[in-house]
Amino acid sequence: MDPYVNKDRLWQSLMDLAKIGATPKGGVCRLALSDLDREARDLFVSWCEAEGLAVRIDEIGNIFARRQGTDPDASPVLTGSHLDTQPLGGNFDGIYGVMAGLEMMRALNEADVVTRAPIELVVWTNEEGARFDGGCMGSSVFAGQVTLDEALAVRDRDGKSAGEELQRIGYAGSEPCAQFPINALFEAHIEQGPILENEGHTIGVVHGAQGICCFTVRVSGEEGHAGTLPMDKRKDAFQGAARMAVAIDELARRFEPKPVITVGVVNVGPGSRNTIPGSTSFSIDCRCPEEAALEQLEQEMRSICKTIADERGLGHAFGVISRVKPVVFDEGCVALVRDAAARLQISNQDIYSGAGHDACHIASIAPVGMIFVPCKDGISHNELESADPEDLAQGCRVLLDAIRNRAS
Amino acid sequence: MDPYVNKDRLWQSLMDLAKIGATPKGGVCRLALSDLDREARDLFVSWCEAEGLAVRIDEIGNIFARRQGTDPDASPVLTGSHLDTQPLGGNFDGIYGVMAGLEMMRALNEADVVTRAPIELVVWTNEEGARFDGGCMGSSVFAGQVTLDEALAVRDRDGKSAGEELQRIGYAGSEPCAQFPINALFEAHIEQGPILENEGHTIGVVHGAQGICCFTVRVSGEEGHAGTLPMDKRKDAFQGAARMAVAIDELARRFEPKPVITVGVVNVGPGSRNTIPGSTSFSIDCRCPEEAALEQLEQEMRSICKTIADERGLGHAFGVISRVKPVVFDEGCVALVRDAAARLQISNQDIYSGAGHDACHIASIAPVGMIFVPCKDGISHNELESADPEDLAQGCRVLLDAIRNRAS
Repeated sequence: MDPYVNKDRLWQSLMDLAKIGATPKGGVCRLALSDLDREARDLFVSWCEAEGLAVRIDEIGNIFARRQGTDPDASPVLTGSHLDTQPLGGNFDGIYGVMAGLEMMRALNEADVVTRAPIELVVWTNEEGARFDGGCMGSSVFAGQVTLDEALAVRDRDGKSAGEELQRIGYAGSEPCAQFPINALFEAHIEQGPILENEGHTIGVVHGAQGICCFTVRVSGEEGHAGTLPMDKRKDAFQGAARMAVAIDELARRFEPKPVITVGVVNVGPGSRNTIPGSTSFSIDCRCPEEAALEQLEQEMRSICKTIADERGLGHAFGVISRVKPVVFDEGCVALVRDAAARLQISNQDIYSGAGHDACHIASIAPVGMIFVPCKDGISHNELESADPEDLAQGCRVLLDAIRNRAS
Repeated sequence: MDPYVNKDRLWQSLMDLAKIGATPKGGVCRLALSDLDREARDLFVSWCEAEGLAVRIDEIGNIFARRQGTDPDASPVLTGSHLDTQPLGGNFDGIYGVMAGLEMMRALNEADVVTRAPIELVVWTNEEGARFDGGCMGSSVFAGQVTLDEALAVRDRDGKSAGEELQRIGYAGSEPCAQFPINALFEAHIEQGPILENEGHTIGVVHGAQGICCFTVRVSGEEGHAGTLPMDKRKDAFQGAARMAVAIDELARRFEPKPVITVGVVNVGPGSRNTIPGSTSFSIDCRCPEEAALEQLEQEMRSICKTIADERGLGHAFGVISRVKPVVFDEGCVALVRDAAARLQISNQDIYSGAGHDACHIASIAPVGMIFVPCKDGISHNELESADPEDLAQGCRVLLDAIRNRAS
């Protein structure tokens, strides 16, 4: 009997998870290491145990659910993604990759498929970075790009550390978060962009990901009374920051090769109607497929901020949060995905990832492939994020085929 | 025996209050209706009771402490200000006006001075508007400019209403907050600007205040993934709001007669590094001494916001929080202040107020005068706010003289 990917079961699992942190507009708010994250993790673990998978949790909260193979010495083939969401996120970003892996496990079990290598379904901690800065936390620590201590020490806006919150929700595991030998990793994900939909293809064979640099700019001026300090005597930190943000946006629009640059977090202090802002910080998320272009963009943004701060008598600090170089995926893994889509006669195209993913971090220590499926109007990081149940099932079929071949 | 204003006692009372909510940089954070506000109010009430003053609290939490006169039918002469501060406020803004009134009461008592009219020392609720929008809350309700129900329903960022918080801290009084006949009101205050210091005068004889309009602009766009949505497909609410804020700042710099315009509160949603902002709101505080100019500024700001929103495919709403017209103080009260300074041979000048004050609201229902003293470098709404003990005592002497004359 051939394993059968059950479209309705996959969809139902996605919808069951979407209830945990559901927002009025049909999206999800399930921030990393919150009570809702715990609830989603607990449900996921219960599903894994029902399938007879052996669950381990490591020190950064990554969850590994193992389906044994016949060769006790073989390294596992991994698949998975994340369960945390943006503050106004959708039902599929990350969750689809985990549920596609679960549906694959269910189909393999139903069909009594035996593989040589074990297969492990993984949930990485804090991919979004929405609550705790520095996304892809679990996979970055696993890949040795960030130390465990650095990650555990990251604090949210209320001053709670990732380490404290992991303990609190009961997902500070005992397993060391260290690289173990990995045969390969495949991650299924919605595209989060409009290309597959525009081109009319169901499967994106992902051959790599653009580079991502994240910065925080802190601008300091002087507080003052809004009613008494003349305009020409002011050192208004927000007015400086606003000019920087506008100039950076204009840089992104004229630069070639086309980058995307986003100012998503802005904090203005002290935040009172009748006080001139004495401090303002803002985030920059800058992405481009070419490494040299990313470096040039960083230099130009540093120059923009310095010029504006100097002109206005403001202090500023341009801090680096993370720099992830463009990633090229393993040729063998990419070919397995492409061949699976061809064998299953599913329309496909090669594509690179605009977003960062846990797989991009694991690519530094193991062969990696990714499978994209379309999402409606390319919308993601939005409550309106939507995907077609049949497209999701097709992605799962490609995932199963590629992994089964790799694990044989 | 003539009443004697004790500089050291006045200073000590100011310093005792400055401990309640003291910040590391020497300022104070004592937001309206917080536990710290209660602590400051309790201390104030205990001081009033020690002076034999009869304390009443009204429904919006205004505190009145009465020193009886000889004529049971005479309306009281009022003086006072507020005890709440900005989030990063100083030791003198508001508090000085209350402590100058208290020092006056102590001096009158020591010298057994008898007045015909009663004198009342008042603390108005939530002057700053830093926690609950719409400052001068207590005086606005008292003057009938805002209804009690409207004021009690205002909510802070955590969703707590002013009414709930008044109850919680025990300052929802039983006295109706209604206009009672007032002979006159005098408010002493630090200038919060640089004019007295620059001109070398100790007393500002305040003849009026500039008008103040407060607005909130809400910009709506579309959330999207920071890594995948091309720049030319974005509807980034923060980028629209930043351009509006910059254009409004530039308007303030070129407009005549010179206004001051401040964007002090900015909220960017959903506030995640890798999500394009779908919503942004910001405050506008706009002040000008001429009413027609204020109206023109509002029209120009509305036009700026509409043009930028339309150009960028964004929605927007330009909401009015409050409009306070320029105020001209009562000639008789202003003359009493000017004459007191002259009689005491304290160097003085006429001045108008750049800031809004409780007195400006009471001016709509009673004769009002104000007394300014210098603050160092004109700095206020800032932890570094500073004033000279002798200047503060001189302001108190002028206050005592003017009130004693008015109450005779």
